[in-house]
Formats: sequence, structure tokens, C-alpha cells
Amino acid sequence: MDTKLLDAYADLIVKTGANVQPGQYVVIRTNVELEPFASLVARKCYQHGAKRVFVHWQSAKMDQVDYQEASEEVLSDVPSFEEEAHKFMADHTPILIWIDGDDPDGLKGVDANKVARIKANKYKVIGKYREAQENKAQWCIAGAPTKAWAKKVFPDLPVEEAIEALWKAILKTSRAENGNGIEEWEKHEEDLKERCEKLNSFHLTSLHYRSDRGTDLTIGLIPGVIFLGGGEKTDDGKFFQPNIPSEECFTSPWKGKAEGIVYATKPLVYNGQVIKNFSARFHNGKAIEVKAEEGEEVLKSILSLDEGASYLGECALVPFHSPINDTGILFYNTLYDENAACHLALGRGFTELYPNHEKYSLKELEKRGINSSLSHVDFMVGDDTLDITGTDENGKEIPIFVHGAWAF
Amino acid sequence: MDTKLLDAYADLIVKTGANVQPGQYVVIRTNVELEPFASLVARKCYQHGAKRVFVHWQSAKMDQVDYQEASEEVLSDVPSFEEEAHKFMADHTPILIWIDGDDPDGLKGVDANKVARIKANKYKVIGKYREAQENKAQWCIAGAPTKAWAKKVFPDLPVEEAIEALWKAILKTSRAENGNGIEEWEKHEEDLKERCEKLNSFHLTSLHYRSDRGTDLTIGLIPGVIFLGGGEKTDDGKFFQPNIPSEECFTSPWKGKAEGIVYATKPLVYNGQVIKNFSARFHNGKAIEVKAEEGEEVLKSILSLDEGASYLGECALVPFHSPINDTGILFYNTLYDENAACHLALGRGFTELYPNHEKYSLKELEKRGINSSLSHVDFMVGDDTLDITGTDENGKEIPIFVHGAWAF
Repeated sequence: MDTKLLDAYADLIVKTGANVQPGQYVVIRTNVELEPFASLVARKCYQHGAKRVFVHWQSAKMDQVDYQEASEEVLSDVPSFEEEAHKFMADHTPILIWIDGDDPDGLKGVDANKVARIKANKYKVIGKYREAQENKAQWCIAGAPTKAWAKKVFPDLPVEEAIEALWKAILKTSRAENGNGIEEWEKHEEDLKERCEKLNSFHLTSLHYRSDRGTDLTIGLIPGVIFLGGGEKTDDGKFFQPNIPSEECFTSPWKGKAEGIVYATKPLVYNGQVIKNFSARFHNGKAIEVKAEEGEEVLKSILSLDEGASYLGECALVPFHSPINDTGILFYNTLYDENAACHLALGRGFTELYPNHEKYSLKELEKRGINSSLSHVDFMVGDDTLDITGTDENGKEIPIFVHGAWAF
Repeated sequence: MDTKLLDAYADLIVKTGANVQPGQYVVIRTNVELEPFASLVARKCYQHGAKRVFVHWQSAKMDQVDYQEASEEVLSDVPSFEEEAHKFMADHTPILIWIDGDDPDGLKGVDANKVARIKANKYKVIGKYREAQENKAQWCIAGAPTKAWAKKVFPDLPVEEAIEALWKAILKTSRAENGNGIEEWEKHEEDLKERCEKLNSFHLTSLHYRSDRGTDLTIGLIPGVIFLGGGEKTDDGKFFQPNIPSEECFTSPWKGKAEGIVYATKPLVYNGQVIKNFSARFHNGKAIEVKAEEGEEVLKSILSLDEGASYLGECALVPFHSPINDTGILFYNTLYDENAACHLALGRGFTELYPNHEKYSLKELEKRGINSSLSHVDFMVGDDTLDITGTDENGKEIPIFVHGAWAF
């Protein structure tokens, strides 16, 4: 890939995405294979004034060895230095930049329930540090191709060509294909904000989803909780773009208020395993029945992680003809695929959408309807037959989506 | 490279090298590029009973960014989680397996003095944890090719062929080229032990080095300190091979007793920078003058690291026609190049060579002549003109090396 375009993409991530400010700590989380691009991003962080950049290397190959060869008990133990790293993050609230290139099949064959239980056990130790970081610092997820991911997306291409093709797709969907991503994102941000303002002006109390695939689901919304799109602000007012790309207007639904069934429209990749053609039936907000043609056990393990894992945490609206969907590429990566279609998420909701959220503890916000969980798993429900109809405070029905496109 | 040979090489490292025992912790330190081989080694560790394997990923590209972009003050600070990781190692004394594939030019252009000062500053915090690990657990260094290292050794080959050629050279010099490394090392161990027993029977008090290149150096030896080769034992008796390959019989000389000049016979790679054609003049044991055609500043930075860095810590005897030298390959990596020829080391000596060393503190051992330093830097002094003559307790001269080969 053209080094000038990569340089501009790194700038987009560091400036528009993470909005690195002088004196801040940065943690870059990335795959070991992405060393060249990650080190470019690190250099940009310093050049924008970062005090120090730490790197948290990830390796699905090494994770696979651990999960296959070590016991649940051993892996559930959080060693002192790992706990200290979480404490450091809670104390110093570094910016988190996640350069995601995970192999969609990276943990294929690993016992998903074991992984889920280990994560839940570890969360008992590290959860308090994670929660202490909520809305304190900027964060940004963006992608870069690893070999395995590129071959999954473009299985018929030789690996080097597949990587090149995935770079092109990443830059295109991130509005960075012409090297002027920072300007493109300023315009894009305005569009998303306008759309959210309109949605918030309706004062909706519920959304009803219906599609030809069989989806028929009503989701309650919390009074006052807003729709947000594009950039966000930390509690101390630093603006950032958490996702590059991002095409969604999203909100956190009312925990306990979802009735009906929803059918997924794209495969879901979770912890290196693929779940295909699945559905979930909700009652009193809880997913009480799930079915999948492939990966049903993995799907069930997602729900069993903790109490909040089987409740919804997000409703996101993305037109079917989004720039990402129009590429026609299935990325096998939530960052891209979630921005290709309307989606829901199981698990943790977004506390920052609650009015004056900084005045409440996480527990209080949960009582008020924002779901809390260790996990947050997006799955796609949008297609070109999806209608979404809102109901406002006065019981009036307002078309939001018609045939997979904005109704207004 | 043939997967069966790599599998057998991983077995050699884990079984013969580290001698992993049930219930032990293991830390694998390796380059991010070596993920595939490192994860194979990790799996072998578990299969030999390791309780848990942690990986400490290294990236010269990221180090370069840090050293170029962040201040000495910032980089000298040891963050709490990094200190905790050192403390964990001091408390739990895991086995250390270092799979070395460092780019010999990885830190080219970086201020070597800055690197040295940062390391010295950090050692003030982490030194006590490092020292607490001395002789407590097995450790093993072995190599695996990264792209940059392979291209440095085989600059005329395309990168994939260079990697293949370096794998072949690594397996050959590690006695692992036929997949029966474990048996080969049993024989090799016997040979080295016999050679060391002979050396120890002489009760030498000094070694005099002389070569056509101009070397004329006399080094004092501490009474009772032994020559060791091949395998070593931890304080609690676990046998291990710290270096794969290893061709040397080595001892720790008497700090303060070295007079004369020595000329290096191969380039030295230090912290990702190359030092070529250099000499060092010693007086009262200290390197008081160094000269180098290339990298003189780097060489001086080595000496300035701390008080012990300009004194000798090792004398190692390797015949000029060693299996490694006979490959005719310059590896630009100490693990291999040091086993190609007689070498000396500046910096830290080997406390485990002192009789009943476990009864003394590091400070006491230093008073008794074992040099102490943060660094230990090997450099090659052997060629086919090198004569080494020992003097025993009675003043009798004993030829040790003649024309670069064992005299006995």
C-alpha cells in the first residue's frame, strides 16, 4: 500500500480518532503482525504530544495455545503484573488505540464456554479498573490487515494481493482512500450529528423492527437517553471518534423491555469463532432462545457470560446502502460489518448516553435501564426489507426506516 | 522450513535447553515477528508440564520510535506494571526462554548513549529483582530468523530464501539439522565437560592472549573459580543448557587484573547497532582506551553504562575451527558469533562459577573478584593466529591454545 496513504490514515486515527493531546499516555493494542503500521501510529502519537506510548501486543496463536493447553483455573488467575497494568490504566486513564487485524478464525476449535468463563472470572478482579476508566479518556478502534484476516475476506487471492485488497477496502470505508480523511471526517461528522438531532427530536419510547426474514421485535427506549453518532466527548470534554469507520446513529435501549424475535443478516465473529444464520427470541428484555446454523454453542456462551450478557445494550441505525455495504465485502469484523447495516448488541450499554450520567454510579445507571455486562457483542439485523417504526411519548407512530433506508 | 525439523528444534529448546519441569512458570521473550515459532515453543512448554506460559513480545521498530520520540526522563521511568512484572519474576522465578531474532541494525541511528543511560536508570529500580533471580531458574537462549536478520546475513538472497537459509544455518549450528538434536546434545555435553575438567585440573592463575593482529593481553583468574561449558545447574539442581548453540568453555576472570591490548576479530552488534574493527586497552583490569573503525561511540556508551561495564566478566575458549566458524557465516548475533571464536565479555561475570557461591551476596562475590554490571557484552578475539598460554599456581606456563586451536 502507498506509504503516503498509510501515513495519512495513521494521522486520521491519531488526530481525528484518538485526538491525542500533549502530555497524555497512549496504549496501543494491536496484533503482533501489525508491527510496521502500529509503530507508525505510535510515532504519530508522540508527534501529537503524547507523553508515552505503551503497546499491548495481541496474538491469537498464543491465546489458542493457552486456551487449549492450560486449565481454566490457571488462566482465570490474574497475575499481579496484569492487575497492575489495569490499575495503571484506571489511575492514569491513557488513550486506548486499538488497531484491529484479528484473524476471524483465530480461536476456531477452542471451547468458547471455557473462554467465556475465564473472561468472567478475570473480570471479577479487573472489572473495577475497567469501570473506573468509563468516559475518562479518548479511545479509537481502526483496522489494518493481517494475513489471516485478508485471506478470510479474499480467499481466492494470493496472500500479498489479499492484503493489498483489504488495505484498499479499509481505506475506502474509512473515507481515507484519497489521503484527505481528516477533512472527509469533518463533513461526515456534520451529517451524522444532523441525523441524530432529528431522531432525538422525536422523543421515542420504543422501536418496532420488522423484516421479510421474520424479524418482529419491539424494543423499549429510556426517556431522555439520546441517539449519538460519530464523535463523542470524554467527561472532561475531549472530542474523539471511537470508531473508524462509523456510519451509525445508536442508542442504549431500556434493559428488560424487548419482546419478539430477531434474525441476524450477517455472520458474527466472536473471540475468533464464526456464528452464522442465527436468531434470538426476547421476552422481558432477555434473549430466552437462540438458534444458529453454525456456532450455536458459541452464541450460547456469549449469553452465559454474566447476567447482562443476554440483554440488549445497543440499537444502531445504519442504512442498507451504506458505503460499507456498497463495497459488497463481508469483512468478518464487527468494526466494518456493524457499519454496513442496522445492528443490535447484546451486553453492556452506553452510560454516556444517559442525561448527566457523570452524576450516577454504574449501578444506579443500570437501575435506570442501561445494561451492564463484561461483554458487548454487536450483530447485524439490517437488510433491504427492514422497516423500523418508532412510537413517541404520545403513542404516535413515526417511520424511522423503510425497506432498509432512512424514512426521513 | 520442514515442520518436523522445527518441531524437533522446539523440543530441543524446551527439553534440553530450558528443561521445563511440571508446575513451572515460563516466560518466553521474543520478537513479534516470531509468533508462529514462539507459539510452537509455548505449546511444547505446556506439554512438558509448564503451569503457565507468559510471552514478553519485543519490537525493535517500537523501541526505535520510543528512543527517537520520547525523552530520556520519560523512558527512564519504570511504570508500576513493568516493575510488578519484574517483581513477579523475582517472586516466582519463572524459566526464561529467549527466542532471539533481533534485527542487527534495529536501532541504527538511535543515540546509543541515551539508550545506555535509560537502561542504567531503569536498573536502579529493577536491578534488585533481576539479582534475586540469579541461578534460581533455568534459562535458554536460542535463535529464529526474522526478515531483517536474514537479509543482514544473506543480503543477496530474496527475503523468503534468506529466511530459509538462516533457518538452515541455525539448525545446523544448533546440532538440530537432522531432527535428533536432543541425542546430539547429550554427546556434545560430554565432550565439553571433559574439556572443562582438563582446564580446571591446571589450577591456572592467569591467561596470556597473543595474536598476529596485535593482541597482547594478560588476564588474572580467581583461585577456585572454574571453567564451565555446556549445561549448568540452578541452585536447586535443575540441569539446563543456557545457550543453543554453545561451543565454549568459559570462566569469570578476576576483576581488576587485566593488562594489555586486545583486537576484536568480528563485528559486535549491540542494541541494534554494529561496531566494527575495534580494540580495547586494559590497565588494572579496566578498559581505559577503545578505538573502532565503525561504531566507536556505541562502544564507548557500553563502557559508560556503570562502573562494572568497563571491566571483564568472561573469558571463553572456542577453537577457530568450531562448527559455527566452519559455516563461514557471520551471523551478526552474539549467540552464534560468540560460539565461532574465543571471546571476552565486558560487564557482569558469572557468580555461579565461584565455589559455594550461594553462601555469598552479590556484593561479597564482587569483592572476591566476580565483576558486577547491568550489561554483559561479548566480543570476539579468536582467529587462527591466536595463542593462549596459561600460568599455574607454581608459575609454570601451560599452552592452552596454539594457532586458534586447543593445545591439548
